[in-house]
Amino acid sequence: MVQTKTELLSTEIKHLDIKKYNFADMIDSMGDTAFQARNLSRAAQIFDMMLKDKQCGVILCLAGSLISAGLKQVILDMLENNMIDAIVSTGANIVDQDFFEGLGFKHYKGNPFLEDTKLQELAIDRIYDTLIDEDQLRICDDTICEIADGMQPRPYSSREFIHIMGKYLQDHGKDKNSIVLRAYEKNIPIFVPAFSDCSAGFGLVMHQVKNPEKHVSIDSVKDFRELTQLKIAAKETGLLMIGGGVPKNFAQDVVVAAELLGEDAPLHKYAIQVTVADERDGALSGSTLREACSWGKVSVVHEQMVFCEATIALPMIAGYAYSKGSWKQRAEREYNNLFATTETVA
Amino acid sequence: MVQTKTELLSTEIKHLDIKKYNFADMIDSMGDTAFQARNLSRAAQIFDMMLKDKQCGVILCLAGSLISAGLKQVILDMLENNMIDAIVSTGANIVDQDFFEGLGFKHYKGNPFLEDTKLQELAIDRIYDTLIDEDQLRICDDTICEIADGMQPRPYSSREFIHIMGKYLQDHGKDKNSIVLRAYEKNIPIFVPAFSDCSAGFGLVMHQVKNPEKHVSIDSVKDFRELTQLKIAAKETGLLMIGGGVPKNFAQDVVVAAELLGEDAPLHKYAIQVTVADERDGALSGSTLREACSWGKVSVVHEQMVFCEATIALPMIAGYAYSKGSWKQRAEREYNNLFATTETVA
Amino acid sequence: MVQTKTELLSTEIKHLDIKKYNFADMIDSMGDTAFQARNLSRAAQIFDMMLKDKQCGVILCLAGSLISAGLKQVILDMLENNMIDAIVSTGANIVDQDFFEGLGFKHYKGNPFLEDTKLQELAIDRIYDTLIDEDQLRICDDTICEIADGMQPRPYSSREFIHIMGKYLQDHGKDKNSIVLRAYEKNIPIFVPAFSDCSAGFGLVMHQVKNPEKHVSIDSVKDFRELTQLKIAAKETGLLMIGGGVPKNFAQDVVVAAELLGEDAPLHKYAIQVTVADERDGALSGSTLREACSWGKVSVVHEQMVFCEATIALPMIAGYAYSKGSWKQRAEREYNNLFATTETVA
Amino acid sequence: MVQTKTELLSTEIKHLDIKKYNFADMIDSMGDTAFQARNLSRAAQIFDMMLKDKQCGVILCLAGSLISAGLKQVILDMLENNMIDAIVSTGANIVDQDFFEGLGFKHYKGNPFLEDTKLQELAIDRIYDTLIDEDQLRICDDTICEIADGMQPRPYSSREFIHIMGKYLQDHGKDKNSIVLRAYEKNIPIFVPAFSDCSAGFGLVMHQVKNPEKHVSIDSVKDFRELTQLKIAAKETGLLMIGGGVPKNFAQDVVVAAELLGEDAPLHKYAIQVTVADERDGALSGSTLREACSWGKVSVVHEQMVFCEATIALPMIAGYAYSKGSWKQRAEREYNNLFATTETVA
Repeated sequence: MVQTKTELLSTEIKHLDIKKYNFADMIDSMGDTAFQARNLSRAAQIFDMMLKDKQCGVILCLAGSLISAGLKQVILDMLENNMIDAIVSTGANIVDQDFFEGLGFKHYKGNPFLEDTKLQELAIDRIYDTLIDEDQLRICDDTICEIADGMQPRPYSSREFIHIMGKYLQDHGKDKNSIVLRAYEKNIPIFVPAFSDCSAGFGLVMHQVKNPEKHVSIDSVKDFRELTQLKIAAKETGLLMIGGGVPKNFAQDVVVAAELLGEDAPLHKYAIQVTVADERDGALSGSTLREACSWGKVSVVHEQMVFCEATIALPMIAGYAYSKGSWKQRAEREYNNLFATTETVA
Repeated sequence: MVQTKTELLSTEIKHLDIKKYNFADMIDSMGDTAFQARNLSRAAQIFDMMLKDKQCGVILCLAGSLISAGLKQVILDMLENNMIDAIVSTGANIVDQDFFEGLGFKHYKGNPFLEDTKLQELAIDRIYDTLIDEDQLRICDDTICEIADGMQPRPYSSREFIHIMGKYLQDHGKDKNSIVLRAYEKNIPIFVPAFSDCSAGFGLVMHQVKNPEKHVSIDSVKDFRELTQLKIAAKETGLLMIGGGVPKNFAQDVVVAAELLGEDAPLHKYAIQVTVADERDGALSGSTLREACSWGKVSVVHEQMVFCEATIALPMIAGYAYSKGSWKQRAEREYNNLFATTETVA
Repeated sequence: MVQTKTELLSTEIKHLDIKKYNFADMIDSMGDTAFQARNLSRAAQIFDMMLKDKQCGVILCLAGSLISAGLKQVILDMLENNMIDAIVSTGANIVDQDFFEGLGFKHYKGNPFLEDTKLQELAIDRIYDTLIDEDQLRICDDTICEIADGMQPRPYSSREFIHIMGKYLQDHGKDKNSIVLRAYEKNIPIFVPAFSDCSAGFGLVMHQVKNPEKHVSIDSVKDFRELTQLKIAAKETGLLMIGGGVPKNFAQDVVVAAELLGEDAPLHKYAIQVTVADERDGALSGSTLREACSWGKVSVVHEQMVFCEATIALPMIAGYAYSKGSWKQRAEREYNNLFATTETVA
Repeated sequence: MVQTKTELLSTEIKHLDIKKYNFADMIDSMGDTAFQARNLSRAAQIFDMMLKDKQCGVILCLAGSLISAGLKQVILDMLENNMIDAIVSTGANIVDQDFFEGLGFKHYKGNPFLEDTKLQELAIDRIYDTLIDEDQLRICDDTICEIADGMQPRPYSSREFIHIMGKYLQDHGKDKNSIVLRAYEKNIPIFVPAFSDCSAGFGLVMHQVKNPEKHVSIDSVKDFRELTQLKIAAKETGLLMIGGGVPKNFAQDVVVAAELLGEDAPLHKYAIQVTVADERDGALSGSTLREACSWGKVSVVHEQMVFCEATIALPMIAGYAYSKGSWKQRAEREYNNLFATTETVA
């Protein structure tokens, strides 16, 4: 049953539109059951509490492969409706997947049983049950390189670089339904603390190799400094964390960083994590939010772990809060305005 | 049963010394059983194959909390006996835990049932069943700041910065049993691609805030460039990955990066991953090494996933290879010599 | 914060009513996304296919603590609407939880952080985040003993015994919303292959100790024989399995048993399993449905594993099929009529 | 790469012999590390404590596929050296795997990537990475039928039936290295509370269908009664549980059953569970031993969960206790003598 590249890349992933459905009552009812349904219900209610709380800035943390998995529209809907004020993410979500789609490329439905050596020959990359045209990913790399080539050579935070990527999509993007673009338009900062760990890394390595003396660099300290600045400005904050990894740690850490800078930043007042990771291996991704309390990062009053895979849990949590409508009273925060606008393009 | 801080921080974690034990025959025998014992056995044998293969450079990837968990000596033994030629790690392992112990501080045995709000009041940080004196961690942050204050203001790779941390420990360290120190002495590069995501981030943010105009920055692109350079120089490579996250992705990606730079770098010839993460959520940490083959990163000939928690699996894999002794024929690679020695201290 | 028994047992678990919600379109849309959302979508569609297939008998397998977790009404709705023709379950669900509620008792919301030694003193039993009054559970045990005391002393299948429990609830039950009662009324067989492994075991041990010579016994072979007989009569079958364990294995095995009896029973044509268990430990609960194909039990054409906790996944799968309405064309099967009606009560 | 049945069934699983290795010091040292290594160490030490405690009867609980996975010799060594006084198991381990090997059949190394439809055609059954000749399994079924045909028609406990299987192996077995045989010879009871849920079920269904009026039946209540009787006689008890499922629940429940019979049976004094199951789905298999305390089953003083796959953890726990040698002072308990010797063979 040999398939060609065209056959393998024939069925597109379609992004789920939570605005079409209202299941808020069901999620409230799940609060009277048990186990993860009850946890999911409480998490959704805490997210809605964050949005009701006028003082609270909301930070969305993204790890895993969420955009390729069809969750882009869920995140866009949260951005567009002022449900999210900042994003901290892995590079894959923002560059390889969202920016990639912004360039007009797509993700395709596959399955986990395909033969990977065969896919390699066909230049198809697999993410569990999803497929990507590797040649298109190379164009994405090249585009990053091209963007960097046009920038003033100096250290940038990933946030600054992603802002410029948003500008690029505004000018040249083919799919306007992009998180990077929408965040650019709405002045919402996106941080990718391990920015080289994705297609951006490939593009920027090419840029630096071409320009060995003077080039763009990505200063991960600046990212941390800016996110800390945001925390100090926001005061009260809530975290909606999908997966763990660097985004989770990075976003939690800013409370401590603010304190070290002599600022009186409160613990994250609300915290939700959706994950299937396990606390029993002692790794950060599965560590409980209670454990984060010992570190002085997260308050235990409104925290909830949900042990559920994100493609199921995120639409339900976001859809719940969308249906509830508390976001309608929220102002845009445009946290990007906190940071000096430097002339970044040569 | 209220405990004081002194009582809580009374029993030190002790690092396991695999050199004392020889269980290689048992691990070979496990290869004739099934499930994860068989996988563990095959992983140990593949690690020994890497060491026998004179052409193969070995990269150790570290995620999770391994040093605090008593695995420092296992890693030191691998460094000292030329079983490892480069390290890619999360910041926690290298800075918050190894460098921290190099400064003379310790980790302590606790348990997962302690009350975290109480720990917070006592300034004790918890990692599952392990405890840290938060005041000592602040000294670690300050030390990073102090080191940065003494450096020329420019972008550095994390590898460069960690090399300077090694020099610091040589001069000022209190516990000479340190990965950062030993890697410094043996010219073994350590990369931390998300360098701000740990105590180093706290120290460097303080440094940058104190020095807003001219300061040290950490260029994560340079890290990627250097590791790619290492891959190109090494040609054949093997990965021993403990946990997933950024180190796994970063180390796998260099094959593609080398290709993009027009260099003919082969797939990673050997690859082992020890993890409890699950492929079924589509995230990178649990993604199979076969999946990495579709991306053109890892060969499927000698790859093995071991689904086991690292404190059990790593001593067995490392201890097996130590007992087998193939490392005795290996030369030091001193990959740090690949990179221009720039004057880094002001 | 010491709580009394009354305080701890104050908030009842309420059973989720899927009939109130229609999220079928969302679940269809999830089929165009990835990972477990896509798997959940396909599982829901396969369940609807089973119901559309007039030739197909549907067997529901239940493991884990589902009734105490608020899923009783979901299962009742499937029974009442001819979406399920037989049940294979662990004893906890059927006796300790459903029959227990039939006697008028309740489950209560707790949390996983309660102190278990304290609960033991208060005679409160904990299931993760759910609480039970142990004194009421003892009444449940006694009721089983009392029922057995009134029966003819001979070996029974668990199905026969549970049928008599249904009669008991019809006569004496306080909560008519019971799976055991509804199955009795609708002639739907319920099998509990490890019948002693629950409150029924306690009651029956008391019965046998009181009646050492002549007593009721539970013949697990008879269960297997009857379920095989059902499979032979049903011909085409589909499995909706929640959790793994004995019910999963038992229900899959009947295909082989039928073959051994010289009957030409087809593989289970449809199979769904909702679980968080992992195939990597080689245990049955997490073993894939593809693996079951090697055993000649399950066809791989319409099979789907969903890696999601049941309190979230089952309402979505059952609710989807309820909304679709294919069950409206299904006839009652009353499989209990397959089995000789023996006079069972003394 | 099509393989024949002979090629696929060519490499035998070999049972690990823990008596050859001494890694007790390493396991003690793991107690000073963290996470699962520390848990494993404590579990091994608790097992040794059970053996030192002259008052304590030791019950081994087995779930999952352990014998096919090469752990038979580990269990045999525990039986032969009085480290175990009773076994509660799933049927697969005892009948399909141990008794099957006693008849002279073998398990073979395979891998999880074989095509299951192809295996089905070849009559090869797969357990994750292990293969079985289905034709030989049918001989095992037939042997059970033949044994039952020769027995007096009446209800038996699974323990009684397995005892007779041991006698059969003594007379007719081809591989004397059998758990069923050794337990028979040493008067150690083996309970399989869901006895039909395995090859025994197939054989006994054939027996009952051939003998519709008068036949052997398996009374699961009698099993529970006998195990309760054992608990009452043993007084102090310890549980070594590999996996969860019915054996875990059944063995824990006897404390409650004894109490219901008016006997003063203490909580299980020691309890160890090796599992990869997760408490977060509320199912029994992953429920903590602390939770079992709320049910009045297990004391929390000496209990330890080890989250590790059994093929790795069991040899280490059993090997530790074997090396320590506390078993040398233990007397045989021959708990089978507690139960009336009835003439069971026609």
